[in-house]
Amino acid sequence: MNYGQYLNLNSILNAQFPESEKKGLLAHDEMLFIITHQAYELWFKQILFELDSVVGIFQDPVLDDQKMGVAHSRLERVITIQRVLVHQIDIIETMTPMDFLEFRDLLIPASGFQSIQFKKIEIILGIKKKSRTPADQDFFRTRLQESERQTLEDLESRQSLLELLENWLERIPFLEFGEFDFWKAYQTAANKMFERDESIIRSNSDLSAEEIAFQVTALQNTRKQFQSLLNKSDANHFNQDPHFCMNQRAVLAALFIKLYRDQPILHLPYKLLTNLIEIDELWTTWRQRHAIMVQRMLGTRIGTGGSAGADYLKKTTEKNRVFSDLFHLSSYMIPRSELPELPESISRQLGFYFTPQN
Amino acid sequence: MNYGQYLNLNSILNAQFPESEKKGLLAHDEMLFIITHQAYELWFKQILFELDSVVGIFQDPVLDDQKMGVAHSRLERVITIQRVLVHQIDIIETMTPMDFLEFRDLLIPASGFQSIQFKKIEIILGIKKKSRTPADQDFFRTRLQESERQTLEDLESRQSLLELLENWLERIPFLEFGEFDFWKAYQTAANKMFERDESIIRSNSDLSAEEIAFQVTALQNTRKQFQSLLNKSDANHFNQDPHFCMNQRAVLAALFIKLYRDQPILHLPYKLLTNLIEIDELWTTWRQRHAIMVQRMLGTRIGTGGSAGADYLKKTTEKNRVFSDLFHLSSYMIPRSELPELPESISRQLGFYFTPQN
Amino acid sequence: MNYGQYLNLNSILNAQFPESEKKGLLAHDEMLFIITHQAYELWFKQILFELDSVVGIFQDPVLDDQKMGVAHSRLERVITIQRVLVHQIDIIETMTPMDFLEFRDLLIPASGFQSIQFKKIEIILGIKKKSRTPADQDFFRTRLQESERQTLEDLESRQSLLELLENWLERIPFLEFGEFDFWKAYQTAANKMFERDESIIRSNSDLSAEEIAFQVTALQNTRKQFQSLLNKSDANHFNQDPHFCMNQRAVLAALFIKLYRDQPILHLPYKLLTNLIEIDELWTTWRQRHAIMVQRMLGTRIGTGGSAGADYLKKTTEKNRVFSDLFHLSSYMIPRSELPELPESISRQLGFYFTPQN
Amino acid sequence: MNYGQYLNLNSILNAQFPESEKKGLLAHDEMLFIITHQAYELWFKQILFELDSVVGIFQDPVLDDQKMGVAHSRLERVITIQRVLVHQIDIIETMTPMDFLEFRDLLIPASGFQSIQFKKIEIILGIKKKSRTPADQDFFRTRLQESERQTLEDLESRQSLLELLENWLERIPFLEFGEFDFWKAYQTAANKMFERDESIIRSNSDLSAEEIAFQVTALQNTRKQFQSLLNKSDANHFNQDPHFCMNQRAVLAALFIKLYRDQPILHLPYKLLTNLIEIDELWTTWRQRHAIMVQRMLGTRIGTGGSAGADYLKKTTEKNRVFSDLFHLSSYMIPRSELPELPESISRQLGFYFTPQN
Repeated sequence: MNYGQYLNLNSILNAQFPESEKKGLLAHDEMLFIITHQAYELWFKQILFELDSVVGIFQDPVLDDQKMGVAHSRLERVITIQRVLVHQIDIIETMTPMDFLEFRDLLIPASGFQSIQFKKIEIILGIKKKSRTPADQDFFRTRLQESERQTLEDLESRQSLLELLENWLERIPFLEFGEFDFWKAYQTAANKMFERDESIIRSNSDLSAEEIAFQVTALQNTRKQFQSLLNKSDANHFNQDPHFCMNQRAVLAALFIKLYRDQPILHLPYKLLTNLIEIDELWTTWRQRHAIMVQRMLGTRIGTGGSAGADYLKKTTEKNRVFSDLFHLSSYMIPRSELPELPESISRQLGFYFTPQN
Repeated sequence: MNYGQYLNLNSILNAQFPESEKKGLLAHDEMLFIITHQAYELWFKQILFELDSVVGIFQDPVLDDQKMGVAHSRLERVITIQRVLVHQIDIIETMTPMDFLEFRDLLIPASGFQSIQFKKIEIILGIKKKSRTPADQDFFRTRLQESERQTLEDLESRQSLLELLENWLERIPFLEFGEFDFWKAYQTAANKMFERDESIIRSNSDLSAEEIAFQVTALQNTRKQFQSLLNKSDANHFNQDPHFCMNQRAVLAALFIKLYRDQPILHLPYKLLTNLIEIDELWTTWRQRHAIMVQRMLGTRIGTGGSAGADYLKKTTEKNRVFSDLFHLSSYMIPRSELPELPESISRQLGFYFTPQN
Repeated sequence: MNYGQYLNLNSILNAQFPESEKKGLLAHDEMLFIITHQAYELWFKQILFELDSVVGIFQDPVLDDQKMGVAHSRLERVITIQRVLVHQIDIIETMTPMDFLEFRDLLIPASGFQSIQFKKIEIILGIKKKSRTPADQDFFRTRLQESERQTLEDLESRQSLLELLENWLERIPFLEFGEFDFWKAYQTAANKMFERDESIIRSNSDLSAEEIAFQVTALQNTRKQFQSLLNKSDANHFNQDPHFCMNQRAVLAALFIKLYRDQPILHLPYKLLTNLIEIDELWTTWRQRHAIMVQRMLGTRIGTGGSAGADYLKKTTEKNRVFSDLFHLSSYMIPRSELPELPESISRQLGFYFTPQN
Repeated sequence: MNYGQYLNLNSILNAQFPESEKKGLLAHDEMLFIITHQAYELWFKQILFELDSVVGIFQDPVLDDQKMGVAHSRLERVITIQRVLVHQIDIIETMTPMDFLEFRDLLIPASGFQSIQFKKIEIILGIKKKSRTPADQDFFRTRLQESERQTLEDLESRQSLLELLENWLERIPFLEFGEFDFWKAYQTAANKMFERDESIIRSNSDLSAEEIAFQVTALQNTRKQFQSLLNKSDANHFNQDPHFCMNQRAVLAALFIKLYRDQPILHLPYKLLTNLIEIDELWTTWRQRHAIMVQRMLGTRIGTGGSAGADYLKKTTEKNRVFSDLFHLSSYMIPRSELPELPESISRQLGFYFTPQN
């Protein structure tokens, strides 16, 4: 076996069939168009391979540190690949609109938005059909072969990474602390912050009375949001907050992890939450750059698949966020130095078995 | 003179005064916050330095190739710097929300949106006060010192790069061709494309009657837009098109440059137009990533300057595009191979004095 | 035809056959290893496609501006792809040594250094078998199938981009200027620079006598190199200079292009030379980062192909530079403001046919 | 206080004094030269700030997980900054040799290699004066002011991060396991690997007898190196191995951490070792790209500080590696699946206090 056989280069390097060449005259830039999309698809395959394995890990009811370490490394890998995917847009941008028009008509009705693998990635992460944009829903209705539609629907019927995350967070055992009412202590610390903030605003001589009123109202709203999240005995208010899609217990667990990430046992959970935020952020960046690129290529024209090109992409970008709960948690932070200290007994639970001796 | 004296490192490296340290206890991450913003300001200074020189070049009524070459190199430099500015967001993202909250209150009412240099860059490129978002206009009204406001207003009263570009495009002498009615030839070529596109849509058996109707209508709208732009004798329709802010003659000149960029004399003009598109695109990317970063840091909280943080930035991103005319021109392209051939006499005018002999 | 058929995804996405899976137990990271190398090979195919077209352009005895514009865009595209290739090393670095060892033995005797496409790229650019490292020569002798060796040898027997560049530079018609002895004028300007430099060194009170002597000697050597290059009537000295592999006339033409790049007709030639420098630089960066990565993965162990891993790569990096003549030309520059002004008659030859009127 | 006052922009933005301007005529690109170097120095300050805090953490005899978590985040930040430093070279490369020559003479004898902050970074990491290249040593002797030399010497007399790392690794308590002789078990596993490797080589019909002999010898050498490292009772052989500068016990501890990084208590130590490898790798990449850039700018000319420019940098790159022991450890890995399983009693020691119940 040699290098070329091992990599199956025969298949990989003989899989480019420009439509323009079939029609008699190769449009030089169609090769770039094909190879770039193939490179995207290769990386999508790798991302799916990693996400599948992470889903498998999260399906395990006992998620020990070793498994979490593996999940963390694989999500880091997904992130590293996503950075390259963003970078690859630079390559497609070396094609000019006129060169693209040379073969664009030959692609109809195929469209760059039709990557089944990309839809799979979205579904595995947690995007639901019903929350998609109308144009995106049309895609499912009109552009897919029956078997593809079935595959995607089956996938959507399984638990997504978002749902598995919610389950795992709910199961986290560190939210009850016997005597110590952590959430009350946290509310007290937060109140101290709000009072200080309010007095800073009120004493700011640069602001007009109107602006002060505006900022104080904003602050009081934030304060109410804190109360609604932290009140564990009443989930009613929380459930009405449109910012969150996970349940209250899961969100509180995520908050606790973010606050006490320096505790050994919370270190990897914190890294995992950060990975998911990063993955979401990078898809957003990718969609945004993609939308600008399409606008640069087509202006306001309609895309080859019949959708409204750049506009379509822009709307999808705004809708298809998955882990927005985790982003939103930043609203519920307080300064590190004002964090309630955990009682020794709890802190011990979160530490290592082995304790270094002084 | 040694290295440190030459670079005035005494000033540069002793200019970091964390507020938290003044209050008695240094918040470790405040140093990063200060140095990152200072690095941004250094690069803003460099960008202003380059843009000022480019404005000077465009103010010159005779813009020969040598000057255009210089303008091109300097805009390329601006682009290279912008890429680093986008990259620098990775550095600020190593700070976590809790670490930021440690010193955030001490910054009020200063705000990261208050960079005078960045406003200058926007104004020099062509952003007008009246087109800014309300929150951005508030900034001008309430956050600036009188002298700063004056400086920015003076700057806005001068011709922006966008206006200078429009003037220069208007003056371009290659739009009249004696006998040859170029624009009619172009309209004919475009019509051929539209007819082909329409027949492709109509014969697409994958599409429902409804979809075909939708796409044909979209195509006819595009066709009308072509007519409105290409009809040089009637600017009325064109003037009502909200996609363009430059006048018809300037837009036609830009279109001609994009179409015939391979003609020697149009090569650098084409590069310049591309540079401006790229600069616009990179500021958009920078604002978008900046907005995500702020959302990740603050959630939905209000910013230190009293503005609505992430939301504010998102709106600004959508408004503050400068060279959207040039992006929009992509809607008016036809395939390269269908471009009308220029008559020998015109082509000669666009070539070099020296002609290689076969 | 849909998206998946157009891209032949059936071939692309079913071309991954991990050896470890065949042996019964998939080593998770082998998938990454395969897909990363396949992505590299896709991009190598694209780079070959672009380089082939550029070679075609340079084979044309009359290289007009339009063709040069096309060559320039395609080389820029190669550069953009190379940047992504460097970036992709980050992805392979998410694999750890222990994970690699899990399937490494199964790859023997295949080796990552066996990419035929990469050898083709090197040959097309201008690397000759005889100048390769011994280990690299071994590869040609022992690792290739007969047909592959034949393909590479045929390729090497054609003119490389380096040779075509030399021919083109030799043919450039702007080196004779009638009455005006440009090269003498340039030598005079350079001498002025050398005299100034020498007096700066001699009057530097920070330097010891020994250091002054060292620097003055270095300066005089540079001066001699100038004389050897600029003396058009005597190529003997020049031919002994190991820094150059192109002939004197070609090197002088390249120097003239670099010096007078602001002249319209030299603008694109200058861009082309810069592209070639950048391509060389990026392969060097890629090889260097590759060598560090291999060292990080394998330490000092021998590679799967039997070559000495990291060490092998390091040596190859130093040898396989192609356009070193163009790098070296930087030694022959003088400050821009001291450049001899070209006589009006010559300057006219280098300009456009159309002349803007004041 | 407003944004500009907080950031001390008055100092930062009025610290650019081009020498060419003082001499009467601003060389446009000198501004870029100054600002780029100032941006580098700002980031060097930030890196020093982070490294100082990490040194402080490592000086603490009890390094608990919380402190290690902080050290890890700060080293990640250093890495993120280093990536931007590498990227910044793109900016300086927008300057051409002729534009640089315009003001180069005015800088003599200042030199870009004279950054005191960069020397400090090297010293804090662990570079010793005696291991520097002769040219680099000259710098210390001739280019520094007395007070600067004193500062650097004082810094070198303190424990570097490399030395602190060695001490910390030596103190790691997990290398004695009562009954269980881990190192013997590891040697046995490694021997199995070597035997398999040898039989693969011997049965490879593609290889000539000569090549087989070469590869078998290489393998046996590696095997001897393993024995020399793993034999804890005899440090003699180990001490003669030029690949390592740390002592045997420290190296073994680092190896153990790399092998069992999935054990909770070893997770952060593993991350720290990886961070140090990455920091070293990124400085190497930065020096390499820096050297290519200088060569592109100056060719083989001597630098403004009197040193031999590109050549000087190339040599320094090869010498100034700090954590080469950690790179070299990759030679001592075995496949993950063949790793000896730790006895339950040891494994418990390396886990969390809290144990999830099935």
